[in-house]
Amino acid sequence: MAGSSATGALSRSALFGEAMKTRILETIGDPASLRRLPPGDLGRIADELRAELIQLGSKVGGHFAASLGTVELTIGLHYVFDTPRDRLIWDVGHQAYGHKMLTGRRKELARIKQSDGPSGFLRRCESPHDVFGAGHAGTSVSAGVGIAEAVQRRGEDSRVVVVIGDGAATAGMSFEALNHLGQLRSPLRVVFNDNGMSIAPSVGGLARSQKARSYFESLGLDYADSVDGHDLDALLKALRELRAREGPAVLHVKTRKGCGYAPAERDPFGWHATAPFEIGSGARKHGPTDAPPSWTSVFAHALERLADRDPRVVAITAAMPDGTGLDRFARKHPSRIYDVGIAEQHAVTFAAGLAAEGLRPVCAIYSAFLQRAFDQIVHDVALQNLPVIFALDRAGLVGGDGPTHHGVFDLGYLRMIPNLVVAAPRDENELQHLLATAVEGDRPFAIRFPRGAAPGVALDPDPKPLPIGRAEVLRSGDDVALVAIGKTVSAARVAAELLEERGISATVVDARFVKPLDGELLARIAGHCRRIVTIEDHAVQGGFGSAVLERLATHLGGVLVQRLGVGDEFVTHGEVGDQWRAAGIDADSIAQSAASLVAGGRQV
Amino acid sequence: MAGSSATGALSRSALFGEAMKTRILETIGDPASLRRLPPGDLGRIADELRAELIQLGSKVGGHFAASLGTVELTIGLHYVFDTPRDRLIWDVGHQAYGHKMLTGRRKELARIKQSDGPSGFLRRCESPHDVFGAGHAGTSVSAGVGIAEAVQRRGEDSRVVVVIGDGAATAGMSFEALNHLGQLRSPLRVVFNDNGMSIAPSVGGLARSQKARSYFESLGLDYADSVDGHDLDALLKALRELRAREGPAVLHVKTRKGCGYAPAERDPFGWHATAPFEIGSGARKHGPTDAPPSWTSVFAHALERLADRDPRVVAITAAMPDGTGLDRFARKHPSRIYDVGIAEQHAVTFAAGLAAEGLRPVCAIYSAFLQRAFDQIVHDVALQNLPVIFALDRAGLVGGDGPTHHGVFDLGYLRMIPNLVVAAPRDENELQHLLATAVEGDRPFAIRFPRGAAPGVALDPDPKPLPIGRAEVLRSGDDVALVAIGKTVSAARVAAELLEERGISATVVDARFVKPLDGELLARIAGHCRRIVTIEDHAVQGGFGSAVLERLATHLGGVLVQRLGVGDEFVTHGEVGDQWRAAGIDADSIAQSAASLVAGGRQV
Repeated sequence: MAGSSATGALSRSALFGEAMKTRILETIGDPASLRRLPPGDLGRIADELRAELIQLGSKVGGHFAASLGTVELTIGLHYVFDTPRDRLIWDVGHQAYGHKMLTGRRKELARIKQSDGPSGFLRRCESPHDVFGAGHAGTSVSAGVGIAEAVQRRGEDSRVVVVIGDGAATAGMSFEALNHLGQLRSPLRVVFNDNGMSIAPSVGGLARSQKARSYFESLGLDYADSVDGHDLDALLKALRELRAREGPAVLHVKTRKGCGYAPAERDPFGWHATAPFEIGSGARKHGPTDAPPSWTSVFAHALERLADRDPRVVAITAAMPDGTGLDRFARKHPSRIYDVGIAEQHAVTFAAGLAAEGLRPVCAIYSAFLQRAFDQIVHDVALQNLPVIFALDRAGLVGGDGPTHHGVFDLGYLRMIPNLVVAAPRDENELQHLLATAVEGDRPFAIRFPRGAAPGVALDPDPKPLPIGRAEVLRSGDDVALVAIGKTVSAARVAAELLEERGISATVVDARFVKPLDGELLARIAGHCRRIVTIEDHAVQGGFGSAVLERLATHLGGVLVQRLGVGDEFVTHGEVGDQWRAAGIDADSIAQSAASLVAGGRQV
Repeated sequence: MAGSSATGALSRSALFGEAMKTRILETIGDPASLRRLPPGDLGRIADELRAELIQLGSKVGGHFAASLGTVELTIGLHYVFDTPRDRLIWDVGHQAYGHKMLTGRRKELARIKQSDGPSGFLRRCESPHDVFGAGHAGTSVSAGVGIAEAVQRRGEDSRVVVVIGDGAATAGMSFEALNHLGQLRSPLRVVFNDNGMSIAPSVGGLARSQKARSYFESLGLDYADSVDGHDLDALLKALRELRAREGPAVLHVKTRKGCGYAPAERDPFGWHATAPFEIGSGARKHGPTDAPPSWTSVFAHALERLADRDPRVVAITAAMPDGTGLDRFARKHPSRIYDVGIAEQHAVTFAAGLAAEGLRPVCAIYSAFLQRAFDQIVHDVALQNLPVIFALDRAGLVGGDGPTHHGVFDLGYLRMIPNLVVAAPRDENELQHLLATAVEGDRPFAIRFPRGAAPGVALDPDPKPLPIGRAEVLRSGDDVALVAIGKTVSAARVAAELLEERGISATVVDARFVKPLDGELLARIAGHCRRIVTIEDHAVQGGFGSAVLERLATHLGGVLVQRLGVGDEFVTHGEVGDQWRAAGIDADSIAQSAASLVAGGRQV
């Protein structure tokens, strides 16, 4: 029964869709129709599903290799469990394209990641089969324990199954969840989908020791021996046994990322996410070769050069050496890069440890994923004023990956933190100089830059430090000031030209630093133009524009607003009363501030 | 040699300091002087150290039981390792009072947690022996791996040792760090200080299974069998063996929290942190019994009552049932509370899972510790709009526990997140009503309240919902408006009285909600008073006052500031260009906004 899907050698007819007329897949509108088929048909379903995934990938690209590896597992789970009454929860969502196909979204997948198409990840609002949304790694067991507890409380006869990859299992929260599960003993089934890969090959002592049984059993979980995830017979048997078990149980399934498509099997890392490609040769369809370099590649190149001249520089990635460009850095400086796994919390505190001993660690982490390490940035880096450098790639709106992947909160949460410098370059040349500023300085320093192609400006021959907290006026005008940060500076410059055509003269400022903000320059510009538009690819609430407002509110005003609160410093231990007085928020201080405001007559 | 310290039965003379004249401890100015003593003296040092800890605790209170449990371990580590050349890194710091005593801070400890005294935790600026600061749990292994790597890169002949408790080991980041260590094989020694306790008894499958060897070995770490941490002979031998090992190695040490002081041994949970006490009887010195109840106890009582009438309510704590008041809830509703361990990330996503199935989970977590779960609040709760309720205790400035424990960033990072309601009560009556508002609503909802005693107002008989987003004017005046949030409202009211004495008439507003903000009321007040002072026990950058500014800037202004950026919603997947247009940050939109601003002539 397992047939060709077990070997990964798809027939040419399946691969190229020559026999599409007779496809069973057409008849599978939902998992219930799948469950009405005899088990002997499942091998063919697997072939067809795999062929369709390859067709889809060749046309629209995307996360592809992970889904090829879970074809049989997806079919088996929906066949053995009564979904969606039984709750099936996937981690991350990279591996869930097949799940989407079997749950009524086959046609829609041609428009995946487009605004009128399905998400590339899992979304509760998209289907009752997407039991819990995903996008970040390692959340499935936590959600599954919660769902299993709630189902049990209701006395409902539903099973709950989660599928977590070995990559996602390196995330600390998956350990927290498994440890809780081992104590709670909720009726949760965990499928450990072990393909030896995160996006890159899996890292960590657990992957290296191959002692998964010891790991799960040490947490009090029943563990069933690993099964070949491409052998449908064995897999169905194992899943039926899993279904029959009562308490918390783990089934170890071994899969091959990219299974069934030879180029992806040979290089599952390179095929994790792909551009559209030609099926026969596996040749990727590239964009124009004269396109500007990506922000990522400029970052990687600049870091490599800074590391050449400064032996203190080391680089850290949380399981994304390719996405962050550090694969390139690794080739040049193989002993100076650390891949810590999907472990942003550890990445940041590990970096703080390195910095405490005089190194200059650069944590290259996507903006949305660095959210995982907010506490560590506060507690381990900034509070101790250690010179850790954060390179936040994929900041701002990222397009097709959607809301789980937008990096639209970083300026807000970072600019609250004392001691930290927060900057965003307007182009790739500024990016390399900001990186030099961070490396040659001795402060914690965050640089955020977006996904995609940089503007394409010429690079100065050498990255060199810029003055911290200094903005740059790119164009002077009288009627309005456009104060922009990062990638939005380019849009602001174009806007100024559009305004000129309408007879409106605009100043354009590249703020460059969100913290410290160039308050002097802003006050001067505000006094001159009297109208300011701030622009950021970030949440407006609490973001860059609010920092500008905060600065101007103390200088100018119609309504005069004075804000009292804890200043931009870490407050040491002591009596709360003293701390309130120091912050100026006790009754006496409030009265004093208010009286000055009234007496000052600074009201416009 | 181990003598009385091994049994925990201190002699009366040691306990009551009758033989203080001849104390060896007086001669120990630093660990080097300790290392000059013969091993036979260490038992007496342990007795004296323990007696001094008890004396200290009886006078100033504090975190006490954990340090009693590590007396022999602290002596042994400083005796066997060449500190501070060998780096000794403690986790959290609760157990490090003895470490402070042996590293030149004996006298200063009488002023512990006072503004002119030492920190209650570890601080790099306090001593070269505080190799890495702490306060939050689970950071030591991450820092230790970083420090060990840096030391190794320099070729320095220094050993690196971390001490992590079994409680702290439930934190996901400690797993991330151990897993990385197992792959990296840095020369790091890990002492696993297993006292079966977090603050409360340790939870989790690992604590339950007692399979520590399997756990550490599954991560690729060499594990040495557990040793009695109060048997100095055995401990010294084990530490010497640990010292001799090259690669990453784990030594399992079993200790008893509270060891050597009978009342604390009998109830180590109750004695985790203590008020001053009478040594002989163990009687705690309590404050006046007519003091108002703590915010915590009012929260717990209100939650208990809401749970009585609503079966959907369940409570979640991250290893702090006592600190959050949920121990009380647990007595009433033992099947409706979950202690997940020191695992805030899991706590939040687990809650999201419960909420996805219709429950109303209440996560009671200190403000500073909820920082650990920022990403989960965004990704698993708010993005899916699941009605998880966050009760952030210890928000604002907390006094003696200092900067690791201040909750001064919560309003800032929470108010950026779409879908979330963010509120803070001015008194305990408002607290119970806000909790009812959250429980009876269907939105994610955060309520922050401070440490310590509530103002002492009368409680309405029943918690009942308040209108979301509605502020309350507590006093009307003409000259200035004091707009306060949470605990600062009381100070603002007193300030208004002080101002009245000076002939200044002040409006006082209890904003109550930071999100959604009562913008209409604020605009009205601003128009009337023209001068506003905002007050918050929170960082001023990005906090409540900034939210007020943001609101007023769109209505009024001297300099007119318009902020463009991503609105208060999660942006779905699609093309980046479309997302920028929708956010109004592309060149055309910027030009349009700027032109309107100029044409509108709204400039004052």
